[in-house]
Amino acid sequence: MKIMIIGANGTIGRAVAQNLEADHEIIRVGKTHGDLRVDLTDEASVKALFESSGKVDAIIATTGSVYYGEFSTMTAEHFDLGLQNKLLGQVRLVLMGKEFLNPGGSFTLTTGILSQHPIRTGANATAVNAAIEGFALAAGNELKGLRINVVSPSVLTEALDKYASFFPGFESVPANRVALAYRRSVEGIDNGKVYRVW
Amino acid sequence: MKIMIIGANGTIGRAVAQNLEADHEIIRVGKTHGDLRVDLTDEASVKALFESSGKVDAIIATTGSVYYGEFSTMTAEHFDLGLQNKLLGQVRLVLMGKEFLNPGGSFTLTTGILSQHPIRTGANATAVNAAIEGFALAAGNELKGLRINVVSPSVLTEALDKYASFFPGFESVPANRVALAYRRSVEGIDNGKVYRVW
Repeated sequence: MKIMIIGANGTIGRAVAQNLEADHEIIRVGKTHGDLRVDLTDEASVKALFESSGKVDAIIATTGSVYYGEFSTMTAEHFDLGLQNKLLGQVRLVLMGKEFLNPGGSFTLTTGILSQHPIRTGANATAVNAAIEGFALAAGNELKGLRINVVSPSVLTEALDKYASFFPGFESVPANRVALAYRRSVEGIDNGKVYRVW
Repeated sequence: MKIMIIGANGTIGRAVAQNLEADHEIIRVGKTHGDLRVDLTDEASVKALFESSGKVDAIIATTGSVYYGEFSTMTAEHFDLGLQNKLLGQVRLVLMGKEFLNPGGSFTLTTGILSQHPIRTGANATAVNAAIEGFALAAGNELKGLRINVVSPSVLTEALDKYASFFPGFESVPANRVALAYRRSVEGIDNGKVYRVW
């Protein structure tokens, strides 16, 4: 298959590419690195991406940022940052990308354990991740002949040096274990499913 | 208690007011009707609302619109309508309103059965409702000394004349049954909970 990975330079994206590259052709996409570039918050940029890539068999998004900050001083403007970036970015990718998936093709989006298990400063992440999982549940019924799934990893073992204090007592997962879920989504038959890698 | 109901002129809002008014002082708030007015998409309008109301013991939101439309022609711009209105509107109400709740006070937000059970044209509703439920789960841990819950009704019996065809085979619920869940949230001890009235 021809598989596009958006966020291919991130910790998860690299692990997914490494898992899939022996068996598939990988198009690595990033904001500043990769075979192609895209800014998922920009409609024109997503359009240009697909005009460059042409049709593919799978589109994987391992990208998107949310707002982290104290709840007591959080504003709607802060909250909207995650809505526009991780949530609407991945939604835009699906709404535009569905015309560039070959029959039987799939989307695999990325959320995270915060969907169900909030942490301090993470209210925006919880809401954004829950919304993406909801979107995929609904879109799974609508993407005629295509599929969509979500991978929800726990905190990455590779990221513990930076994030351990935000995830007290959470069991981490190595990126190569998380990568398995993307392969399951791409090569399997599931649709509208959330793979929780916890 | 002094209870503010935003969306007090809607079918649910009226039923909630009717349920609570014998035992509590109700402040009815709407966009165009009510004791006070607010546009939850407008930061200044929400600020003005609380400056007029002063402190209250409970804030109930039974308001917010989402985008309904064919998935095949849905755009990110369409999708953002529900993010800005029902999702960010209710989030803004909480982020600003928490300073105007008396100790022990509560928020009760409104989602709907589409969070877990998507319908045709309803991908935005599913994502928005799921996000609000996620937000409440997270905010429940952060609202020191306050509480927040969500009521998720099925399609209202009173709305079947307009919406029955969108909800084939769904069991409807009368607004006065939905109203019970708001009383449970306001007078009970629950926090971070979703009351599914299905």
